[in-house]
Amino acid sequence: MKLVKVIGSVTSTIKDDTLKGFKLLMVNTVGTDLRSTGDYYIAADTVGVGEGELALIVTGSTAKQTEATKGKNIDAAIVAKVDRINLEK
Amino acid sequence: MKLVKVIGSVTSTIKDDTLKGFKLLMVNTVGTDLRSTGDYYIAADTVGVGEGELALIVTGSTAKQTEATKGKNIDAAIVAKVDRINLEK
Amino acid sequence: MKLVKVIGSVTSTIKDDTLKGFKLLMVNTVGTDLRSTGDYYIAADTVGVGEGELALIVTGSTAKQTEATKGKNIDAAIVAKVDRINLEK
Amino acid sequence: MKLVKVIGSVTSTIKDDTLKGFKLLMVNTVGTDLRSTGDYYIAADTVGVGEGELALIVTGSTAKQTEATKGKNIDAAIVAKVDRINLEK
Amino acid sequence: MKLVKVIGSVTSTIKDDTLKGFKLLMVNTVGTDLRSTGDYYIAADTVGVGEGELALIVTGSTAKQTEATKGKNIDAAIVAKVDRINLEK
Repeated sequence: MKLVKVIGSVTSTIKDDTLKGFKLLMVNTVGTDLRSTGDYYIAADTVGVGEGELALIVTGSTAKQTEATKGKNIDAAIVAKVDRINLEK
Repeated sequence: MKLVKVIGSVTSTIKDDTLKGFKLLMVNTVGTDLRSTGDYYIAADTVGVGEGELALIVTGSTAKQTEATKGKNIDAAIVAKVDRINLEK
Repeated sequence: MKLVKVIGSVTSTIKDDTLKGFKLLMVNTVGTDLRSTGDYYIAADTVGVGEGELALIVTGSTAKQTEATKGKNIDAAIVAKVDRINLEK
Repeated sequence: MKLVKVIGSVTSTIKDDTLKGFKLLMVNTVGTDLRSTGDYYIAADTVGVGEGELALIVTGSTAKQTEATKGKNIDAAIVAKVDRINLEK
Repeated sequence: MKLVKVIGSVTSTIKDDTLKGFKLLMVNTVGTDLRSTGDYYIAADTVGVGEGELALIVTGSTAKQTEATKGKNIDAAIVAKVDRINLEK
């Protein structure tokens, strides 16, 4: 999984039928300091996270194996909302 | 998915039979400022996007699961045209 | 596999059901000097490693094939604790 | 797919049996200016391209799905020779 | 495939059962000048290569399809020893 911050969303009218109904969030991978590490993904939200929140995404074929995304043409999905990061002292 | 901007296309005469009939678009991954983040893909267009437009691509095995790309030797496909990016204030 | 150092963990209450019960460790890919090479993963621990230790992760579909992770929506898993790195002289 | 330039080839005597018979080309990913973007692949040639030419590669499981590469332990294959790149003005 | 140089190995006592018996080599991706391009992998050796030698690795699901690695939780495997790199003049 990758730790990401939700930074926005995208709106799309013309799209693959299987993408309909998903909230497509724009997320940024972040490191321990919660700053961007430079990678962006558009991920289908399967758990309900808000903008500015931290989350975990799965990518590739794993993104098509949640209850919500089975059989959908999705390769990035949010699977957890992150409450806290605990760093080694 | 990755947010991309369509920047051109490629023409190919000698190619795998399963690639025939697809428009092969050259796309650039972009960040929130819509500037290139440095990655290029050649993606099969499955929804009809024009040059200069924003789109979403899927990569890997997901790219072979749209109606149009099933059984094709394709690992990058455009699955949505992006109308608007909504960024967190 | 990727050589990583365990640098922390994440806590998540709202998450995909199949992620429940896993310790989700934050890891950093490292090179021969054991310094970060810049990539972070959140990996499900399947062997029991502690913070600050070196480990191996598998990613993608392989991460779903250990005894512990079969059928889970996991795309990064720790599969070995590393005792020693032996470098060519 | 990735746009690449063929820059050479590798010779290997000791190798996995399924790799025998393939021309293993060394390729460089390129951007719109046809300069290297820094990634190298060794790709099995399935269409017949020469050194210095532009081509498209597929990677991952897709590389094992052409007529020539089915059942082979290959994760990068050349699937098209590129005649022309058409860039947005 | 990726061109790599074998730079060492890792020793691990506590690990996934399916990893037992494999020599786990630390490898560095290299470019045409044989210098590191910055990526490290820990790869299961399936052909017998020594430290300092050049080799080809496959990654992802392909790494689980050699005779030696079928059914193993491995996502990077050495599949060829490279004798010579032939570069375009």
